[in-house]
Amino acid sequence: MKEESIEILVSNDDGFRAQGIRELTEALRPLGNVTVVAPDGPRSGASAAITSTLPIKLKLRHREEGVTIYSCTGTPADCVKLALNTIFKERKPDLLVTGVNHGNNAGICVIYSGTVGAAMEGCVSDVPSLAVSLDDHSEICDMSHATAYAARVSRMILQNGLPHDTMLSMNVPQGKPLGLRVCMVTDGRFVDEFMTSEDARGNAVYWMTGRQINKGTVEGDLELMRAGYVTLSPIKLNMTSRRYLPELERLINEGI
Amino acid sequence: MKEESIEILVSNDDGFRAQGIRELTEALRPLGNVTVVAPDGPRSGASAAITSTLPIKLKLRHREEGVTIYSCTGTPADCVKLALNTIFKERKPDLLVTGVNHGNNAGICVIYSGTVGAAMEGCVSDVPSLAVSLDDHSEICDMSHATAYAARVSRMILQNGLPHDTMLSMNVPQGKPLGLRVCMVTDGRFVDEFMTSEDARGNAVYWMTGRQINKGTVEGDLELMRAGYVTLSPIKLNMTSRRYLPELERLINEGI
Repeated sequence: MKEESIEILVSNDDGFRAQGIRELTEALRPLGNVTVVAPDGPRSGASAAITSTLPIKLKLRHREEGVTIYSCTGTPADCVKLALNTIFKERKPDLLVTGVNHGNNAGICVIYSGTVGAAMEGCVSDVPSLAVSLDDHSEICDMSHATAYAARVSRMILQNGLPHDTMLSMNVPQGKPLGLRVCMVTDGRFVDEFMTSEDARGNAVYWMTGRQINKGTVEGDLELMRAGYVTLSPIKLNMTSRRYLPELERLINEGI
Repeated sequence: MKEESIEILVSNDDGFRAQGIRELTEALRPLGNVTVVAPDGPRSGASAAITSTLPIKLKLRHREEGVTIYSCTGTPADCVKLALNTIFKERKPDLLVTGVNHGNNAGICVIYSGTVGAAMEGCVSDVPSLAVSLDDHSEICDMSHATAYAARVSRMILQNGLPHDTMLSMNVPQGKPLGLRVCMVTDGRFVDEFMTSEDARGNAVYWMTGRQINKGTVEGDLELMRAGYVTLSPIKLNMTSRRYLPELERLINEGI
């Protein structure tokens, strides 16, 4: 089954030692050669952040037949950017898969997630990219369904490609999924966002917490994942609101 | 002119001491009360990153009639999130303006920018939000045109509002602008992205550098800004590619 000519780049935001990326790597091995370039430690919530004022480094961690693992001192997006500019300078990978993230990235998490941010960076460079997230924050959890669906969708991407500047984001529920559903990203937001506490000197400190709600009218990835489905949503890199362009132009032309 | 009832939140990614945010604050004072909540130091390239594993703090730095300034230990998005959950818990601000960023955020920079990321966070909470960026990385530069256009568009937003989950991103060229143009965000990407160097022990290190190119066919904010115009682009928070949804659904239903 293994196609020697297929090259797959793998990254994440939980760091190269996380269970999610280790099991994802094993699941993708039958599809091609896997190169992991992932942060040297946790970078949850890193979004598409990049490191522009400090130098970053790559470190070879492991090499065996079909799998090579590097750690990087930068953000998830840095990892992908640097991999594409060094290891894959001569030939782009055929596929980028990020994750499996420990925690879902449904709804508004798309903009906060380092796992999605890393996949966006692949998309910037026209590498077909998939972000995979499991709705379980535990460091040790059952990744088997997430990695099976990730491999299945990876095969589809390798066969069919993806449209220009479009990536996929997959969210996997806990337990055995009811099936795979293509859907919108939920218009979500977090509420009860901070827990207030004190530091050792009595100063107020704020810990991020909260839960996501759907603030729109469309049932999207958040609801379907919570209902037990694996969700798959296409994400467009260009965030321009084409719908509002003419109205904004009219307002500006009226001489605000 | 000053409307006492208008409350404006201001943030950035260059830190509360930067020239850009200081001059923006002065330019917005005629429109209402200004509250600055900005990072305690530079956070360029922070995207919409959030701090989820460490506590963050707020510090009151300055208070005078019509202007209150806080610094925050978190990311730009943290600043806005925390401001909306504490200072503005009872009543949301009427407007969020972020910047003036030292450096443009046209094209693909939309996904990397902390200035845009902070404005997105306002948008998440349904606060009309505007990100303002000047195409000049100098720490000291002429901010006069950028702040004048920022105030002008801020007035328009206060009068007309913005659509649900849509924010505006403005990019200002160096020198006297030729005018204001509403436009798409350019489908851009960076090339020549890293300078390779060595650390003191002889290990390879990578410094991010590069220049942005237009990889698409549409002339957008990058080209218009380079041609001397102030650009204004509407940014949609929900990144779902509605166009690709039916095709992806067909592929999945065919039983990949």
